[in-house]
Amino acid sequence: MGSKGLIVQKYGGSSVANVERIRNVARRIASYRKKGYDLVVVVSALGDTTDELIDLAHAINPDPSPREMDMLMATGEQASSALLTMALHRLGIKAVALTGPQSGIYTDGDYTRAKIVNIIPKRIHQEIARGNVVIVAGFQGLSPEGDIATLGRGGSDLTAVALAHALKADLCEIFTDVDGIFTADPRIVKSARKLDVITYDEMLELASLGAQVMQARSIEVAKKFSVPLIVRSSLNNKPGTLITEEVEGMEGAVVRGVSLDKSQAKVTISGVPDRPGIAASIFKEISKAGINVDVIVQNVSSEGKTDISFTVNKADLRKTLEVLEKVRRKIKADKVTADEDICRVSIVGVGMRNHPGVAATMFEVLAKNKINIEMISTSEISISCIVKARYGAKAVNALHSAFGLGKKRKKSA
Amino acid sequence: MGSKGLIVQKYGGSSVANVERIRNVARRIASYRKKGYDLVVVVSALGDTTDELIDLAHAINPDPSPREMDMLMATGEQASSALLTMALHRLGIKAVALTGPQSGIYTDGDYTRAKIVNIIPKRIHQEIARGNVVIVAGFQGLSPEGDIATLGRGGSDLTAVALAHALKADLCEIFTDVDGIFTADPRIVKSARKLDVITYDEMLELASLGAQVMQARSIEVAKKFSVPLIVRSSLNNKPGTLITEEVEGMEGAVVRGVSLDKSQAKVTISGVPDRPGIAASIFKEISKAGINVDVIVQNVSSEGKTDISFTVNKADLRKTLEVLEKVRRKIKADKVTADEDICRVSIVGVGMRNHPGVAATMFEVLAKNKINIEMISTSEISISCIVKARYGAKAVNALHSAFGLGKKRKKSA
Repeated sequence: MGSKGLIVQKYGGSSVANVERIRNVARRIASYRKKGYDLVVVVSALGDTTDELIDLAHAINPDPSPREMDMLMATGEQASSALLTMALHRLGIKAVALTGPQSGIYTDGDYTRAKIVNIIPKRIHQEIARGNVVIVAGFQGLSPEGDIATLGRGGSDLTAVALAHALKADLCEIFTDVDGIFTADPRIVKSARKLDVITYDEMLELASLGAQVMQARSIEVAKKFSVPLIVRSSLNNKPGTLITEEVEGMEGAVVRGVSLDKSQAKVTISGVPDRPGIAASIFKEISKAGINVDVIVQNVSSEGKTDISFTVNKADLRKTLEVLEKVRRKIKADKVTADEDICRVSIVGVGMRNHPGVAATMFEVLAKNKINIEMISTSEISISCIVKARYGAKAVNALHSAFGLGKKRKKSA
Repeated sequence: MGSKGLIVQKYGGSSVANVERIRNVARRIASYRKKGYDLVVVVSALGDTTDELIDLAHAINPDPSPREMDMLMATGEQASSALLTMALHRLGIKAVALTGPQSGIYTDGDYTRAKIVNIIPKRIHQEIARGNVVIVAGFQGLSPEGDIATLGRGGSDLTAVALAHALKADLCEIFTDVDGIFTADPRIVKSARKLDVITYDEMLELASLGAQVMQARSIEVAKKFSVPLIVRSSLNNKPGTLITEEVEGMEGAVVRGVSLDKSQAKVTISGVPDRPGIAASIFKEISKAGINVDVIVQNVSSEGKTDISFTVNKADLRKTLEVLEKVRRKIKADKVTADEDICRVSIVGVGMRNHPGVAATMFEVLAKNKINIEMISTSEISISCIVKARYGAKAVNALHSAFGLGKKRKKSA
């Protein structure tokens, strides 16, 4: 059936949370099929299945083996792929369900957080040639030993993006429960506007800065292989947001969005002897403990001593303090303190590369709103400020307005 | 670790219905391990998981595709094998979970009721050599296309028996929620006694006659390959019932057990022209419709016409009557009637081969109890009578007593 092209779609757990939603997804897939597209559809586990399986495993063993954990978790997506396929059959659409291993997804076998190392989509090509919509169980692949390995958080998005690349798909659509990528979180900023287009780099900054629509790793893969990506809602027919490479003058925006991240805590080690290599010795120990550090700030030295502050995920705070206390004694620093009552406010946009005044504007806006900045961090296309948690929403709203990100007023009437 | 031998065990869904029971099963396995046995353990899906998955599938599609049905169903055993393995790890026992395909179980690919065609237990041998208890997801194997196929009812028992043969295991233990095989259903006959030993053939008759502990297909495989089988409870430490080949003078019993089957209905086609080939023409059509017939009785012919009665499973009754009505018109028989209000009472024992008086005793016992016999059927080691359903329990109790199957009185005190 002369195909109009190949589309890879991904539906998240909330899109297939119950029988009615599974039927809705099937109807959507059927409508694409009737338009003449070939389709490979990646599906997550039903609703809260994954969390329920984790709870069950932990009730049996508080420290379950990663290999068996993956074997258990993978059942969620295997089940949802079979169910979605049955729903398509009921609509008269030819379809076949495949597990990650059957789809030819090979991983490094690092259980619970495996990386995809290769995709050999022979079976998928066969099934497309037979006229089938191929429903792939997301989040999983084969280990080098022939066992099941899962891809960790955002694993189904990654499956979709990696398959879109391997299959040379024309488009990869990520269906979720939001309408797309917004200039700010609509729950915080009322005038937040859905973006029609955003670059991979901007999306990467937003992903790592707390906009939780997609994990950074999937966007990195999409960027690396130039996979055209659309994020859109499975609950309506709105067009969503296209994530693509940078286009000259794209939407002409300096700042594309404002984000708020409340997941971090600030840690400070004070009275650190100011000598070469001291920062390295601190962060080497932190890194050894598997803790990711975000913003780092070192204050100016006074009297041969300096203060070093950084942020870590709140979940890692206790471990960080343990490690840091050992380091403090070793390097003879004065004390270690922590502050969980902070948040990170960031502005993102590729346009700011050519607009040196953006940082100044940001600081000015915060100052005008009497919001004290505790730490500052910048990348080529983003600026982040750590402020007290209670100022987070106020800061985001003020910045969103100051950079003109709000909804455009309708011209008529 | 110099092994004392290899045991294959199977635990049914009720044995792993919740976290506490899974832990109990793990403790039992650990105790075998500590005694020095190598172990391969086949496990069913948790409690009612399989039924829940079937309901979910039917809510989405009343007629789900067998291939995807199997993919869905197989998740139940995959999950329970992973969970049981985690429970063993918690007890410090080395263990690894394998799916049916990973265990090298190859089937004919007849989805939802596949037959095992070959077992290549290379991976299982490897894992045993590494010192692991191997936990195998029951009920499933690989299709010739490399997909997941399930083995149908009793599939986990079959997995265990077939693995015990392929691995040349010293013993195959089927753990269930009853203490073993009884002389009669203890819910019906108060004095019913657990048997220490029973032959494959007797067990086959009991299985097909309504004693629902094990499916006939697993016992057939055990018989074919002389796999020594024990049926016992996972809830206590009682020794269970050994199922084995016939041993001269084994327990010296003529009748080993009495069974009751309420699942059948009687169908009669009356006024059938009595000419050669007429029975064949009837049962060919019934067979074509995929209906299994149990007892068949043809009455003596009078005036060139005869009556033919047979029993079918109640679930097949409606279809049987449809087929039979067509046949009736074609062969010009008088009428078709059905009776669901019947049951089948059977006595089983290899000893009756050499005791011609057993049938007479059975008929006499029923007559004394004023129970009318509607149909009679015999095999080499069993005799069955169809009687009105309301007489079932009475008949079983009377026969159980008459053949001396009750509990032996204690000699002391």
